[in-house]
Amino acid sequence: MTNVMVVGGGPAGLRAAESLARFGLEVTLVEQESYLGGAVARHRYQVLMPHFDSGPAVLDRMVSAVAENPRIHIRTGSRIGQVEETDDGFQVEILGRETGVESVRAVVLATGFTHFDPRRDTKYGYGLFPDVITGAELEEMMASGPVTRPSTGEVPKSVAFIYCVGSRDRQVGNTYCSRVCCAVSAKQGIEVREQLPGARLVMFYMDVRTYGLWEDELYWRAQEDAGVVYVKGRVAEITQRDGRPVLKGEDTLVRGPFEWEFDLVVLAAGMEPGEATAELAAQFGIEREPHGFFQQTRPMENASVTSHPGVFVAGAASGPKTIEDSVMEGEVAAMAVLRYLDSKVTV
Amino acid sequence: MTNVMVVGGGPAGLRAAESLARFGLEVTLVEQESYLGGAVARHRYQVLMPHFDSGPAVLDRMVSAVAENPRIHIRTGSRIGQVEETDDGFQVEILGRETGVESVRAVVLATGFTHFDPRRDTKYGYGLFPDVITGAELEEMMASGPVTRPSTGEVPKSVAFIYCVGSRDRQVGNTYCSRVCCAVSAKQGIEVREQLPGARLVMFYMDVRTYGLWEDELYWRAQEDAGVVYVKGRVAEITQRDGRPVLKGEDTLVRGPFEWEFDLVVLAAGMEPGEATAELAAQFGIEREPHGFFQQTRPMENASVTSHPGVFVAGAASGPKTIEDSVMEGEVAAMAVLRYLDSKVTV
Repeated sequence: MTNVMVVGGGPAGLRAAESLARFGLEVTLVEQESYLGGAVARHRYQVLMPHFDSGPAVLDRMVSAVAENPRIHIRTGSRIGQVEETDDGFQVEILGRETGVESVRAVVLATGFTHFDPRRDTKYGYGLFPDVITGAELEEMMASGPVTRPSTGEVPKSVAFIYCVGSRDRQVGNTYCSRVCCAVSAKQGIEVREQLPGARLVMFYMDVRTYGLWEDELYWRAQEDAGVVYVKGRVAEITQRDGRPVLKGEDTLVRGPFEWEFDLVVLAAGMEPGEATAELAAQFGIEREPHGFFQQTRPMENASVTSHPGVFVAGAASGPKTIEDSVMEGEVAAMAVLRYLDSKVTV
Repeated sequence: MTNVMVVGGGPAGLRAAESLARFGLEVTLVEQESYLGGAVARHRYQVLMPHFDSGPAVLDRMVSAVAENPRIHIRTGSRIGQVEETDDGFQVEILGRETGVESVRAVVLATGFTHFDPRRDTKYGYGLFPDVITGAELEEMMASGPVTRPSTGEVPKSVAFIYCVGSRDRQVGNTYCSRVCCAVSAKQGIEVREQLPGARLVMFYMDVRTYGLWEDELYWRAQEDAGVVYVKGRVAEITQRDGRPVLKGEDTLVRGPFEWEFDLVVLAAGMEPGEATAELAAQFGIEREPHGFFQQTRPMENASVTSHPGVFVAGAASGPKTIEDSVMEGEVAAMAVLRYLDSKVTV
């Protein structure tokens, strides 16, 4: 019985655990929340980009593959305490309802991301104006019912999406791109259009990064089928007038300032390392890259390899990722563990 | 001895073959060219984006892991003939120097991409004007020596890069984005700057898609360290005046037409399915997506699964991919084969 610990029960961790168990290993899966599924569960994603898969169906499939597996020992509501390196692995303290110590031979860190909190960038008025919400809040709203203005409960006649909130922005300290927000916003535009056939829907962007085959599924479809308008421009400030958010900024294509009222504003808030990332890096002795994500030390060879033998990463904990990428990296991490345990030679 | 066939000896196929052999399977690796390494070898990439790894070192590592492996039977200069499905796999005819039939239980198709041929879009004058070259030709030029103007052998004082050649372009029939060209061009801009400290370097783009953590490594670095100028604009036509290419188009940010002479023009030509894709899809009975790439039928679960059990895909044959993505998919395909052969149930 070879024991491997997977930390994080989102798409990457679930896949890593399932794959390791599939090939005969005993897996301890540690998740800080009381539920599995990561961001998909947390924000109750109903429809996943880019293929418009059912979020609950994907979540159910991912979770049940793990929950029903006798080789996977699930420890929800738990976090990592003391870590000690041993001759053949790690002794890891698990803090939670059942506190204890596990001996494991390898570890997969799949602790995901947190969304940038737009309160940190005061120009958007988030937290101040009720009709300025985040993309994750829009997902949760759509999971419970129709899209409405939080201030009045009315159906909005106009919705603005602001891209790159907390991303590509030196002022907030995040120079990187969060990789999925352009595509998620396009998906949301398409969905909102179905609910609101007559509404004005506008995306304010720097660059539209619906890369690869997403271009057809999302970018063209949002514009041509859903009538979403794309405006290249930076929003400099959101104020409020007569109870409605007002966007002030510059349209960089027509080179003019705009001042534009909307009933609802959706901030495409980017990804940042999950809360536990810094602490886990210290506990397991691995390096982080300049933004605080776990460092992939040999990405061209193997996406899951870190600076410490026996410690692997998967998913958004090493940088912004899609669900598909995270699942793939969970699989790659599992294989890296299989190789590592067989041979004691990293990949 | 379980035999698996991998078709295509680029980054995805090499990794799939190596992983399968690592876990005990006998692998036949079929490659149409006389060499292994795919596009990395074909275009002699010296420096790989985004981390500026050495292309020859990466290539050597990938190829030697396969070449020295006694479980991997390499058939270069070969292609696939007749395919017959059997009770437990496929009988595959290999056409080449040693023609023969192999019985295999599963197949990984990793046949990659071809570059869009800019001759098909006559507005660029490619093939007509000697100083209009492709990004791949720039790579080959940099592999042999300094960057020069093909017409005169002189060092260029100005270089233009045109993005989205053959991509995101309904007129040429490719509505998708080729995913890597923005980043490759930024990398090339940084490299060209090292050779040509005084030259004017300009990128003509629609959207700059250096997504995720590439933003720091490539986008900011190209602009701030290498002094590359980014102009949002479409090039409508290239003509030639006094032996130099002239770009005509519209700068969409200043909303004005431009007419701009350069010493050298580099076309960032996109990716299309490899030549053999259609034939292989027919031979192995798998579906293709609307652009002709192999269809990933359950991408949210497993990137390598196709519409036919036992036939898996990896790398750019299912859509534009980076080398890192291709390696990862090769690993995922290998694991999918391992699962498939154990259980006869697709993942």
